[in-house]
Amino acid sequence: MQRIGVLTSGGDSPGMNAAIRAVVRKAIYHGMEVIGIKRGFNGFIEGDMEPMHLGSVADIVHRGGTILHTARSEAFKTPEGRARAWENVDRFGLQGLVVIGGDGSFQGAGLFHREYGLPVVGIPGTIDNDIAGTDFSIGFDTAVNTAVDAINRIRDTATSHERTFIVEVMGRDTGFIAIASGLAGGAESILIPEQPFSLDDICDKLCRGYRRGKLHSIIVVAEGAASGLEIGKQIKERTGFDTKVTILGHLQRGGTPTAFDRILASRLGARAVELLMAGRTSKVVGLVAGEVVESDLHRVIGEKKKVDLNLYRLASILAI
Amino acid sequence: MQRIGVLTSGGDSPGMNAAIRAVVRKAIYHGMEVIGIKRGFNGFIEGDMEPMHLGSVADIVHRGGTILHTARSEAFKTPEGRARAWENVDRFGLQGLVVIGGDGSFQGAGLFHREYGLPVVGIPGTIDNDIAGTDFSIGFDTAVNTAVDAINRIRDTATSHERTFIVEVMGRDTGFIAIASGLAGGAESILIPEQPFSLDDICDKLCRGYRRGKLHSIIVVAEGAASGLEIGKQIKERTGFDTKVTILGHLQRGGTPTAFDRILASRLGARAVELLMAGRTSKVVGLVAGEVVESDLHRVIGEKKKVDLNLYRLASILAI
Amino acid sequence: MQRIGVLTSGGDSPGMNAAIRAVVRKAIYHGMEVIGIKRGFNGFIEGDMEPMHLGSVADIVHRGGTILHTARSEAFKTPEGRARAWENVDRFGLQGLVVIGGDGSFQGAGLFHREYGLPVVGIPGTIDNDIAGTDFSIGFDTAVNTAVDAINRIRDTATSHERTFIVEVMGRDTGFIAIASGLAGGAESILIPEQPFSLDDICDKLCRGYRRGKLHSIIVVAEGAASGLEIGKQIKERTGFDTKVTILGHLQRGGTPTAFDRILASRLGARAVELLMAGRTSKVVGLVAGEVVESDLHRVIGEKKKVDLNLYRLASILAI
Amino acid sequence: MQRIGVLTSGGDSPGMNAAIRAVVRKAIYHGMEVIGIKRGFNGFIEGDMEPMHLGSVADIVHRGGTILHTARSEAFKTPEGRARAWENVDRFGLQGLVVIGGDGSFQGAGLFHREYGLPVVGIPGTIDNDIAGTDFSIGFDTAVNTAVDAINRIRDTATSHERTFIVEVMGRDTGFIAIASGLAGGAESILIPEQPFSLDDICDKLCRGYRRGKLHSIIVVAEGAASGLEIGKQIKERTGFDTKVTILGHLQRGGTPTAFDRILASRLGARAVELLMAGRTSKVVGLVAGEVVESDLHRVIGEKKKVDLNLYRLASILAI
Repeated sequence: MQRIGVLTSGGDSPGMNAAIRAVVRKAIYHGMEVIGIKRGFNGFIEGDMEPMHLGSVADIVHRGGTILHTARSEAFKTPEGRARAWENVDRFGLQGLVVIGGDGSFQGAGLFHREYGLPVVGIPGTIDNDIAGTDFSIGFDTAVNTAVDAINRIRDTATSHERTFIVEVMGRDTGFIAIASGLAGGAESILIPEQPFSLDDICDKLCRGYRRGKLHSIIVVAEGAASGLEIGKQIKERTGFDTKVTILGHLQRGGTPTAFDRILASRLGARAVELLMAGRTSKVVGLVAGEVVESDLHRVIGEKKKVDLNLYRLASILAI
Repeated sequence: MQRIGVLTSGGDSPGMNAAIRAVVRKAIYHGMEVIGIKRGFNGFIEGDMEPMHLGSVADIVHRGGTILHTARSEAFKTPEGRARAWENVDRFGLQGLVVIGGDGSFQGAGLFHREYGLPVVGIPGTIDNDIAGTDFSIGFDTAVNTAVDAINRIRDTATSHERTFIVEVMGRDTGFIAIASGLAGGAESILIPEQPFSLDDICDKLCRGYRRGKLHSIIVVAEGAASGLEIGKQIKERTGFDTKVTILGHLQRGGTPTAFDRILASRLGARAVELLMAGRTSKVVGLVAGEVVESDLHRVIGEKKKVDLNLYRLASILAI
Repeated sequence: MQRIGVLTSGGDSPGMNAAIRAVVRKAIYHGMEVIGIKRGFNGFIEGDMEPMHLGSVADIVHRGGTILHTARSEAFKTPEGRARAWENVDRFGLQGLVVIGGDGSFQGAGLFHREYGLPVVGIPGTIDNDIAGTDFSIGFDTAVNTAVDAINRIRDTATSHERTFIVEVMGRDTGFIAIASGLAGGAESILIPEQPFSLDDICDKLCRGYRRGKLHSIIVVAEGAASGLEIGKQIKERTGFDTKVTILGHLQRGGTPTAFDRILASRLGARAVELLMAGRTSKVVGLVAGEVVESDLHRVIGEKKKVDLNLYRLASILAI
Repeated sequence: MQRIGVLTSGGDSPGMNAAIRAVVRKAIYHGMEVIGIKRGFNGFIEGDMEPMHLGSVADIVHRGGTILHTARSEAFKTPEGRARAWENVDRFGLQGLVVIGGDGSFQGAGLFHREYGLPVVGIPGTIDNDIAGTDFSIGFDTAVNTAVDAINRIRDTATSHERTFIVEVMGRDTGFIAIASGLAGGAESILIPEQPFSLDDICDKLCRGYRRGKLHSIIVVAEGAASGLEIGKQIKERTGFDTKVTILGHLQRGGTPTAFDRILASRLGARAVELLMAGRTSKVVGLVAGEVVESDLHRVIGEKKKVDLNLYRLASILAI
């Protein structure tokens, strides 16, 4: 293998730059060349690609976002789009491709591999953490710490009685961020899409807490479970407590990546290059039980990882 | 003067603990005793008060919130409430009172002074920064940095084209936080209650920016100017751009106070004690043009400080 | 089991409070009582102990340090000291003990268990991460992020040519923090006690980097490998490059714990209580391959966990 | 005025990028062109200069360091060096120059103005804060917050008795950072170059504190007053207390700039352009008593601003 491409695709996540750096430097270390593809599959189709050197990835390990930019590509879902990308594979002499992103990105990579045979390896990068084949995807740890930092700040305030804070975190389909940040932040209740919840129970718990002298209560809501504003409104109606709502939104995607995410990204990026060198293709790398492993791309695609409900229950016990 | 009381009242703000520490230590340094009053005027009425020592304020200079807790007191607005507070003045032997809080707290302190003659000094503590008699109130600098940190994180993400981020910050009546965080964060537009705005103009500016290649736009909205969610919805309708909304809410009240807020709090707290010692009462301390000054309490009450529209215009020029 | 004690011992680490909270709340959840023992084994000997309630551990999950304080106890190494502690076991009716700390603390706990039979469970809390029986000890992730934050800041500066930054991190006997922070921070070289190093090689690498246009180089030094100041002096002598030294020291022990450390502490604390309830004693809980596990206390004591030299080599490859 | 140059020179400081952004955008807003000069006066001499556009300064307002890089230039101190720079003024058609830096940079700018008549305006950027003509120089507020953050972390730890922490901060000739961070951080003692100190007094104070039950003491040392390591060694010898030393070094120059520094930089940058447009040259802009003002360059050069010893004394009173 002489020359490979690398791209970031889908929603960005903190640590993607560290993964790009690892792919580029590991490949160069082994004497290969790397072509950076801009704006995900869009740049692949349009030939927005350029050689990357050691210096191209200097001083990016600590930057949020992705220097290659990212996009969701409708065009790559069409045969015409992929055909144009294949022309660029040819034109730039690519013999392999590393795709950093989430499930949708892996689907595109898998399809392209099946149609054109280009060796591809996926690296899971999404703050949602719901990709199969890895215990952690790049960016999750940073996003959780961002949410926990918000909870910390709210914890400082609100020493008035009978006040409830709602923090809406990301997670359209899944409660990974909500569970982790709620457990780490000591939230009184956590609402996730995977579990039904009863506003009556939540309000009962709030009332019991305040009777016992709690100065404030914090409820973490995954956006996929409910609207934070709506929850706040309903709690106020039922209990009369003052409710204050914070919606974190996209700030969870940014920030300098944590050490955990950078180390994860470095390890996965390096392994992705090794897989391509070893001719092991159509794989996704991941961290399972502390070890870097590979999974078949087609097994990972479309399979959502499940949240650990033990952590959800632990959070509830510790918030009594 | 042998013994003074200190309380925090109204909405809390980061740096209030540093002010309490300064009042307690400065008073003890001069041989006086300090009684800490809990939960604002409520604790004053109920006699929830206790002596503070050097160690009572150890290791609090860096903590958000207030160790004395705070509350808004309806009872203190009644003659009966103030009469009960006066009994506690007598019971605890207070000869002076330091009130850390905002306009409402100063009103209560002023009324109490007029009725009972207890010497009082106010220290401006509110993130809103709209108290007259001081260029900066305690907590404002921290709140602005919190908002700017959120904007930083959003800046990392969203490299997709034609995406607009809305950040709703605090400021029910005033744009101090919005202007400072928008200017410091490099926001494209800033919406404040003090200035009319046109959504057409904002959308035009967004479109021009994207045509010129801007990868993202950030709009800071003071809660008193508009609802962040509503602005997001309307921009999407008019431009078709994807809009993402963050509502910071009460997390702006928390966090470890900045060096600026701690130094401000330390200086104002120490001066408040000096004023009481010098028999100068019914005053508010403040920082004006870099110097600690005193103002008459009755002049500060009810007078809202105006935002500096030059900064607002500068933000607009620098965001072209 | 009706009543257990909990103490923190040895050097403190961020996340110990989250572990205390988990022990207290989990035990109360199961109908048990918890006695908090102050200042490690010293408080155990002196009977500086008091009941803990749900509220005792409110709002501490995000605080660095330990609310129970910690100390190294010479007295507990003597038979007389342990005899006095046993009297307090009797006096307070303790039926089990949770010890949060490092190797020395576990030795004390193990000895006490052998002599007096009190059921004990250890929870590994130390930033050094060298305790056997767990992949991560509480506080390590926070300490690494603190070191990485320092490296980030240094990375911003020093765009002058031919300047080398040395960052001395903790690790008297081991390079865990140095390797993790060096890898995550993108350091050019990492010096650890476990590996010999050659200043000539380091200087050669620096010179090659500068010839290639590197604007700065960062060297992370574990305190056990060398003195940062000495390394700085010698590099300057050999290369003529300007060298600047940062010694992080004890600030690595503080700071608000990361989400990872809090979740780890919560899980380990809860499991420790479960072990005591199940009559499984003389154990250490830990996280191995992502799962909470138990190990025999006597196997963990005195056995230092080894650093992962693969990460060390990976850091070197990615810093070419 | 049609075209101006901008450069950063001397030691870098956080917020310089915000100043560059303000200069570039303000100038373009008024229809002027801006040439960015790289690596301070070195790039000026070598013609390492290029046009800056609106997009050149996008997404830099939050970055530490300076995108134009900086250097100390020996060559610009020679008539030959300045003559070569003058050729570049001619070649690039510069009609004015903005120099962001400290005293040494202003000297160079002043000399060049006298010799060749090019209109110049200086913007004070240095973490040391000792430049005359301004209450605050760009980067000082960020550096102080960095030092305070370090003190915060140390405050969390060390609950063992009789332990003393020494934090060495920057300030070769001046105690600005030491006083501000020591006051804000609640340090027990502050050592600055401007004031003699007695180790006997410091040790007495430490001993009194520990007898009164203080769990730890923190001493902030400006590098120009003493070596932190030496102070630690001597205190240990005299008192027997365990001393732990942190040397912050260059990490104080980095980090994302605070809101204060960005707003300061934005205001000063915009005013610098206005002065050039108004034909007011050989000036330094600054913030005095909250207002942006101008001073004559030759009055600022060589005049060190004095620290405010009232703050130094206040810190001492509040640390009793």
